[in-house]
Amino acid sequence: MVALRDVTLRDGLQDETPISTEHKVAILELLLAAGVTDLELTSFTRPDRVPAMADADRLAELALGSPARMWGLVLNLRGAERALAAGIRNLQFVLSVSEPHNLENTGRSVEESLNELRAIVALAESSGAQIEATLATAFGCPFVGQVDPSAVLAVAIRARELGVERMSLADTIGAAVPTEVASLVAQTTAVAEPSELGVHLHDTRGLAIANAFAAIDAGADRLDGTVGGLGGCPFAPGASGNLPLEDLVHALNAMGQPTGIDLDILLEASALACSLVDRAPTSHVAVAGPRFARTATAAGTRS
Amino acid sequence: MVALRDVTLRDGLQDETPISTEHKVAILELLLAAGVTDLELTSFTRPDRVPAMADADRLAELALGSPARMWGLVLNLRGAERALAAGIRNLQFVLSVSEPHNLENTGRSVEESLNELRAIVALAESSGAQIEATLATAFGCPFVGQVDPSAVLAVAIRARELGVERMSLADTIGAAVPTEVASLVAQTTAVAEPSELGVHLHDTRGLAIANAFAAIDAGADRLDGTVGGLGGCPFAPGASGNLPLEDLVHALNAMGQPTGIDLDILLEASALACSLVDRAPTSHVAVAGPRFARTATAAGTRS
Repeated sequence: MVALRDVTLRDGLQDETPISTEHKVAILELLLAAGVTDLELTSFTRPDRVPAMADADRLAELALGSPARMWGLVLNLRGAERALAAGIRNLQFVLSVSEPHNLENTGRSVEESLNELRAIVALAESSGAQIEATLATAFGCPFVGQVDPSAVLAVAIRARELGVERMSLADTIGAAVPTEVASLVAQTTAVAEPSELGVHLHDTRGLAIANAFAAIDAGADRLDGTVGGLGGCPFAPGASGNLPLEDLVHALNAMGQPTGIDLDILLEASALACSLVDRAPTSHVAVAGPRFARTATAAGTRS
Repeated sequence: MVALRDVTLRDGLQDETPISTEHKVAILELLLAAGVTDLELTSFTRPDRVPAMADADRLAELALGSPARMWGLVLNLRGAERALAAGIRNLQFVLSVSEPHNLENTGRSVEESLNELRAIVALAESSGAQIEATLATAFGCPFVGQVDPSAVLAVAIRARELGVERMSLADTIGAAVPTEVASLVAQTTAVAEPSELGVHLHDTRGLAIANAFAAIDAGADRLDGTVGGLGGCPFAPGASGNLPLEDLVHALNAMGQPTGIDLDILLEASALACSLVDRAPTSHVAVAGPRFARTATAAGTRS
């Protein structure tokens, strides 16, 4: 059974006009009620660069005590210290495999980010926190285009050597195709032997769900998604969101693969989150409803 | 290599406010320029029921002489006679596996539709035309919900016994999941041994592309799609269109599986068709563009 991690509160909201911490808690409560047990809560980044995550410390405080595994995204040691001080026990360290993207996103070279990771591993060990390394631009970069899988594997091996056992492969710009996802999941598993390997997908070219199935077939342990497919660049409406979680839950349910998630409540979370950021969902099930939920009594479609 | 059939001019337009025959020809010319060699041109149905297809005879006349294989959809002998008189050489006979849907769509029971098919086979043989049987509601029906695969196989066997060698399995309401598509493609191939088996998918629950890959892996010969994902119920915007052809072409190209279709020209056809019916494309590549087509120079996304 593949695990699902909701990343609505971080990746789904980070580029939006900030919503209140109380509204985030309301979304969180619906996600938890739906049965979500793994989620990205926020990022501990610079409030001037990511204003929508400026309330990270307060949100973490309000969310403390939830039974779910809550991740805080960090880009450096400073962020990790903030996250731990706020009570976060699961640090999601993001670095990009592509040098120009890592520079843009973190202000560091990949080597410098790996040095930050080394320090964070030491900090986490002393405080009993978990670390995941998310390898961004693993399937393509907005600056250099195609990314060599061997570069991804090299970073995965380095992270593993530093003691990181959990990893995610992120298709940051939604460029991956299923064959590439399957291949990179298999290769990362073989060379870095992560204890938990996630895949983070965007639907930019309409392939998020197909890539998710490819990842599952290749043995990925976990997939990220947002309700409503929220997230991504607000300047390409309908094209760049995260993998729509309700579509994946609906599909897995229909395929007899239990997710532990209640679709109806997840759809409530989706409706609330989309309404709070004033965006139409890019997910399909949020619009059409689950299959066979109700049957028509008037004219159907023709073929 | 899987073949791709464009169904924009029929399934993509049939529920829209009618556009002029000249505009249909303009779309057709771009599709042909893009390298489309197989397409649904129109349907020979009742103009009062499908006004957008009322110009079927004239469109067929204008399209005659094209090197592409052009299909005319028919529901009965009368339609087949019209199609042949208009010069159509490829008759796509549609019947629904589900009784209430077939009644709604054709005014006949499934048995009565099979009787029509028998008469059409005789007519086609005498005039050298090809026939395909499209089995609608093969994965679900708006009236009865789930459809038993054995009912689909029974109709496929009957069609084959009548001499029909080409078939399509149509997910009329976009209810299928990849495991079901793979299973039904394999079973239909085994019991009916079609010379050509197509799969017709709708993206109602966001699974059209994933289902397409499942169909390909299971040995389907052909997939249907529309530019812009046009088609489906206009009352569920963004949720019910056909498989978006440019997204599939983009994916197959990126996976090194040649389609023979020029994506740039196909995107021109998509833009024209969407503009003529005043709808935003539900395809993703039409909005985001192909991967790695251009690289950014400004800020990218964060993870």
